[in-house]
Amino acid sequence: MNDRALRDMVTGLGGKKEAVPRETGFDITAASEVMAILALASSYEDLLVRLDRTVVGSNFAGEPVTAGQLNVSAAMGALLRDALKPNLVQTLEGTPALIHCGPFANIAHGCSSVVGTRMALKLADVVVTEAGFGADLGAEKFVDIKARQAGLWPSACVLLGTVRSLKMHGGVEVARLNESNVAAMEAGFQNLARHAENLRKFGLNVLVGINRFNSDSDEELDRLKSLCAGEGLPVAVADVWNGGGGGAVDLARLLLDALEKPAAVQPLYPDELPLREKIETVAREFYRADGVDFAPAALDGLAYLQAHGFGHLPICVAKTQYSFSDNPKLLCAPVGHRLSVSGVKLSAGAGFVVAYTGKVMTMPALPRKPGAERISLTPDGEIKGLY
Amino acid sequence: MNDRALRDMVTGLGGKKEAVPRETGFDITAASEVMAILALASSYEDLLVRLDRTVVGSNFAGEPVTAGQLNVSAAMGALLRDALKPNLVQTLEGTPALIHCGPFANIAHGCSSVVGTRMALKLADVVVTEAGFGADLGAEKFVDIKARQAGLWPSACVLLGTVRSLKMHGGVEVARLNESNVAAMEAGFQNLARHAENLRKFGLNVLVGINRFNSDSDEELDRLKSLCAGEGLPVAVADVWNGGGGGAVDLARLLLDALEKPAAVQPLYPDELPLREKIETVAREFYRADGVDFAPAALDGLAYLQAHGFGHLPICVAKTQYSFSDNPKLLCAPVGHRLSVSGVKLSAGAGFVVAYTGKVMTMPALPRKPGAERISLTPDGEIKGLY
Amino acid sequence: MNDRALRDMVTGLGGKKEAVPRETGFDITAASEVMAILALASSYEDLLVRLDRTVVGSNFAGEPVTAGQLNVSAAMGALLRDALKPNLVQTLEGTPALIHCGPFANIAHGCSSVVGTRMALKLADVVVTEAGFGADLGAEKFVDIKARQAGLWPSACVLLGTVRSLKMHGGVEVARLNESNVAAMEAGFQNLARHAENLRKFGLNVLVGINRFNSDSDEELDRLKSLCAGEGLPVAVADVWNGGGGGAVDLARLLLDALEKPAAVQPLYPDELPLREKIETVAREFYRADGVDFAPAALDGLAYLQAHGFGHLPICVAKTQYSFSDNPKLLCAPVGHRLSVSGVKLSAGAGFVVAYTGKVMTMPALPRKPGAERISLTPDGEIKGLY
Amino acid sequence: MNDRALRDMVTGLGGKKEAVPRETGFDITAASEVMAILALASSYEDLLVRLDRTVVGSNFAGEPVTAGQLNVSAAMGALLRDALKPNLVQTLEGTPALIHCGPFANIAHGCSSVVGTRMALKLADVVVTEAGFGADLGAEKFVDIKARQAGLWPSACVLLGTVRSLKMHGGVEVARLNESNVAAMEAGFQNLARHAENLRKFGLNVLVGINRFNSDSDEELDRLKSLCAGEGLPVAVADVWNGGGGGAVDLARLLLDALEKPAAVQPLYPDELPLREKIETVAREFYRADGVDFAPAALDGLAYLQAHGFGHLPICVAKTQYSFSDNPKLLCAPVGHRLSVSGVKLSAGAGFVVAYTGKVMTMPALPRKPGAERISLTPDGEIKGLY
Repeated sequence: MNDRALRDMVTGLGGKKEAVPRETGFDITAASEVMAILALASSYEDLLVRLDRTVVGSNFAGEPVTAGQLNVSAAMGALLRDALKPNLVQTLEGTPALIHCGPFANIAHGCSSVVGTRMALKLADVVVTEAGFGADLGAEKFVDIKARQAGLWPSACVLLGTVRSLKMHGGVEVARLNESNVAAMEAGFQNLARHAENLRKFGLNVLVGINRFNSDSDEELDRLKSLCAGEGLPVAVADVWNGGGGGAVDLARLLLDALEKPAAVQPLYPDELPLREKIETVAREFYRADGVDFAPAALDGLAYLQAHGFGHLPICVAKTQYSFSDNPKLLCAPVGHRLSVSGVKLSAGAGFVVAYTGKVMTMPALPRKPGAERISLTPDGEIKGLY
Repeated sequence: MNDRALRDMVTGLGGKKEAVPRETGFDITAASEVMAILALASSYEDLLVRLDRTVVGSNFAGEPVTAGQLNVSAAMGALLRDALKPNLVQTLEGTPALIHCGPFANIAHGCSSVVGTRMALKLADVVVTEAGFGADLGAEKFVDIKARQAGLWPSACVLLGTVRSLKMHGGVEVARLNESNVAAMEAGFQNLARHAENLRKFGLNVLVGINRFNSDSDEELDRLKSLCAGEGLPVAVADVWNGGGGGAVDLARLLLDALEKPAAVQPLYPDELPLREKIETVAREFYRADGVDFAPAALDGLAYLQAHGFGHLPICVAKTQYSFSDNPKLLCAPVGHRLSVSGVKLSAGAGFVVAYTGKVMTMPALPRKPGAERISLTPDGEIKGLY
Repeated sequence: MNDRALRDMVTGLGGKKEAVPRETGFDITAASEVMAILALASSYEDLLVRLDRTVVGSNFAGEPVTAGQLNVSAAMGALLRDALKPNLVQTLEGTPALIHCGPFANIAHGCSSVVGTRMALKLADVVVTEAGFGADLGAEKFVDIKARQAGLWPSACVLLGTVRSLKMHGGVEVARLNESNVAAMEAGFQNLARHAENLRKFGLNVLVGINRFNSDSDEELDRLKSLCAGEGLPVAVADVWNGGGGGAVDLARLLLDALEKPAAVQPLYPDELPLREKIETVAREFYRADGVDFAPAALDGLAYLQAHGFGHLPICVAKTQYSFSDNPKLLCAPVGHRLSVSGVKLSAGAGFVVAYTGKVMTMPALPRKPGAERISLTPDGEIKGLY
Repeated sequence: MNDRALRDMVTGLGGKKEAVPRETGFDITAASEVMAILALASSYEDLLVRLDRTVVGSNFAGEPVTAGQLNVSAAMGALLRDALKPNLVQTLEGTPALIHCGPFANIAHGCSSVVGTRMALKLADVVVTEAGFGADLGAEKFVDIKARQAGLWPSACVLLGTVRSLKMHGGVEVARLNESNVAAMEAGFQNLARHAENLRKFGLNVLVGINRFNSDSDEELDRLKSLCAGEGLPVAVADVWNGGGGGAVDLARLLLDALEKPAAVQPLYPDELPLREKIETVAREFYRADGVDFAPAALDGLAYLQAHGFGHLPICVAKTQYSFSDNPKLLCAPVGHRLSVSGVKLSAGAGFVVAYTGKVMTMPALPRKPGAERISLTPDGEIKGLY
């Protein structure tokens, strides 16, 4: 359950017989490092290794203390035993799908589990997985964190876009997105083009899927396809809203073609680059920032991590998904901005260092009316109101 | 998990965006009123009614506030949906058994679930259930709380005893319990006799089962049987340690005989007796105390509950299981003692008022070496070290 | 300043650079053990000795830790340097008076300072000091704590009473105290008589001063004087409300007479009596209780103090001032009651052990409208609204 | 007393009868806004006005709540009544001096009181006052905060320097400051020259006083004087260490000369400049920064203050005293740096907005061995070990 009251608290009160007072708090499941660990673990052994090295505090000398040092990692692993097993579900059309793990895409890497992907690769000829939200966040973390750790390199990359989002990047306000506006879409196309350019830096074969909305005009769709072609990007319209799986056959064929091409995917930066330079690399290459402003706390944190043996870890940037920059209002393809890093946090078990940028909110807001109020239980034991 | 650090805490810290600071704490599952509610609920409807009326705090005017007033009882019920279903297990000999719910026997009533008992009554000719620990606690609560609420009146009662425990009540120290000592057992028999006398006050047909240990001498067993006979108590030795189910055939036959006799079971006190007098009745009739010393906080609490419409509830005494008195060192069949009540607590959902006596610890101590340290997970996903 | 919000708190938050989290609280000045220490110290040396031995906590082994062990007692003494000097003030008639220290009369001994009394004894032939509130509290503590520690034994004792209070002890409600009611006063006289009887147990020469109110009838006053005479108590009416100091000349003369008589004052119990028996002695001899009910926490506390070398200290009872018993509604001269002791607290620096009885409130309630709201400061720097 | 454990805490615990739980903390006296208020108040009336408008929190709507709204400002004023009176002390030579108030020079303005300065101006022909530490902090705040609020404009300004500090700014390490090093001093002179240039921006008549150390060589002193002359700065050596007041006669004469010159002092920026631009003005004009990096929290805070009627207040920069920049290691006269502002804080009663820069520590570190351990009190009541 989400309970804001548990985010920050003092525990261990009640006198000497209880425990030692301490400032602490609960994270929600998706924000816990344990979720990222589960998503990145490749086996029970690897799960235990990751739990073991998870840093849970520091001793009086300031040295990191791990769950392993507290002798609790195996018990944690036992609690997670069944959770490491992927869930097999089906789409409305009966196609099988694996859904497994939900690490947040800001303070974590936002990808489904390594175990799930491996299972899918055993069972199917082609595996499609999703990395959300925004290719500057999701795809970058997919390659630099998940693929790097698991050795699971993708053969091709479908960059999804919509006419509507490009019009918004081109300056159209939300209320007028239903109107055809080729000029605005052209202006906003710079956003898509930059994402494609970014993805090619990984060595990925990139194709574009246009997620069609009924409000898209043929003129807009045609123009978008020719803009993609101008950038050398294979492109197909997918109309799954109206056509279900059949609506995406063109895109699927395009993808199968792409899989025939050789791909030599590699991460954006090597393990041995210092943490600070890793952040600067992502900021420069992916966000196109002029530079990075590190707050003093961030510099201290990076120096501490570098000195304590965590310098080889990849970076996980917590940034707004609305802009390449850390300013959610800077749309399209901004240049000349600086990335502001306020602090960093170690996820030693998951195997990355989180960098907090701008004013990113790492905790979801809760609705004014709690979801619990909608839920009911019938006399026959049926639960209603969950969705 | 048991974590002492969560027993007493201040939550809601972190500023205005988070929540309102509040002193609170977690109970372990067995000590939560929710466990007692689950054990006493007779259906999903009844579960919701109980959750709804559970008092979770008070408003500024000092009036009780319920989970229902917070609109969360249905969501709580949804979480408990599967938990209300009894668990069917089997003994080593393959006999079916239902195991369901574990409310503590001090701050709660210590009996298995009403739903489980009802299910067993549908499935079997004879249902045996257990009420622990010590007949002055378990059996009293079974009749005055579970039977009263569920209308499930027992037809007979097996009072279990051991030669060893009677020798301890007769003054023998633990290290010498293996030695035959008829005189000490005779002295300690007053304890068993008083339990039997207590149980007959409910109108129960009482028989005695002697749980045989290999250290019991024939002389001791013979003398114990004749002492029971002297009190008019049917008695049989059960040697399940050596004989399995077959070792209890005599006792089972005795029980079947007892079920032939008519029984008119009734609680010790009526609903309408004021809370204070209910406590005094249990203390006088069952514990044989000269009187009850109520701490001022207990009197205030009782007055509050009586005034706010909770006067009709039965009492659940949190007392040491080692003595009829609130002093764990006062063995056998003490008289002349007083019961000291330090405070009371409402369990409105479960439907009783807890009275804390003496120095009873309502929370289990934790081992010096955490159980978590023994647990392991193999590469094949097997969990070891749980027991 | 009185601030309820500071009574219970968790300090030392803010992370490792700050301090260690701890549950603690502020006492108001009069309730602090430091105030009692100041009032009982006979010199700067004695002040330092007392501060040094003040117990401020316990170590992990449960042994007491003193201010001296923290090396802070001398600095505390420095802060109190000027506070140890008595204040010389004058009455409305210009008579000099020393006012010094205000330890509460429940959790402390309620007497003015030893240094002030000694200074007065150097400066005047006769020193009158006050011990409040209720002779069962104030006078008992004056002899058993202040006199015992300072070796300052009083030569005589003026027991003050009013016609109105005796009528109240005789059953008259407050609204009707202005009406003459000799019968009620006679009934309530048992209260005064018992106080006198108590004080004589110390070996004190006791005389009675009647603090006259304008509502007192001559008949009431005459009857009260003859009742006192019947108990062998010298008595005088003091009408200081109407006559100022002159109104008390008769009482003063009576006191001078009393000073001529030899007095062999001694405490109620010897130092070497165990703490528990000291409490029982005061309860039996002064409160006329049938016995004492110690809560388990009180027994544990007494055992701890006895075992750690504090068994020789006198007892300071925190009890309601409205009754000889711990029940404020039990007026006049009750018998047959029991004293309920809920807990004990060590004041090692002051040199006594506090016993909490009944539901005594050791903290003053604060007014609904804070006193601060009345206070003002003029442009000339004059403070108004303090009283 | 300084107690780190009181810096961050949760108060109001202990249940409903006590108070409302709240996260809060104590500031040490010099860091309290009350100290700055006292130092800037010109009269009792002004003191009350300032206390009244002090913002102590916000309501549920996020609007500021003042001490006046809580009806406590007059009572606060009463407590401060005597504290507003300056202290008259004397130097070792018997010269009178007023010492009054000690607001910190980072989170407050670091100047002695307005009331003290006014009193001195009534009593003496020439008043010398100090503004610490570093002219970029102390002198800037003296003019922009104290002089602006009080209308007390200085007639001249003595800029104090030492040969040693200039050598340090010129790159000499501390251990070698005793060695004559004219070249290093020349290099470090850029620091002094920039301070002088800054002060002239206020319209101040600036002269330089060289605080002589015995390690200064004649060659260094001569060169320093000629460097000052080259900047058109009147200069004199003051050797008060060896010569007492007499050692500063030259400097005093120079100051008297300077007082003859007309001065038209004015602040660096007008009241009506937005808060953000005020910070940027100080950063550019005084610190010579290329620009200011505002953390998001700082921008939010400035927007809030601007919107709630505090935009007219001057700025009080909390910055390291070791450098013109916010980096204490950037000595001499740095250029090309940026000022990093992490947050802002309103001192509505004092009448300024604090801007936190770099990693400035606003709380003094405490010594490893508490000062309290050195303090003692003799039997005669003399306090030793305070210094």
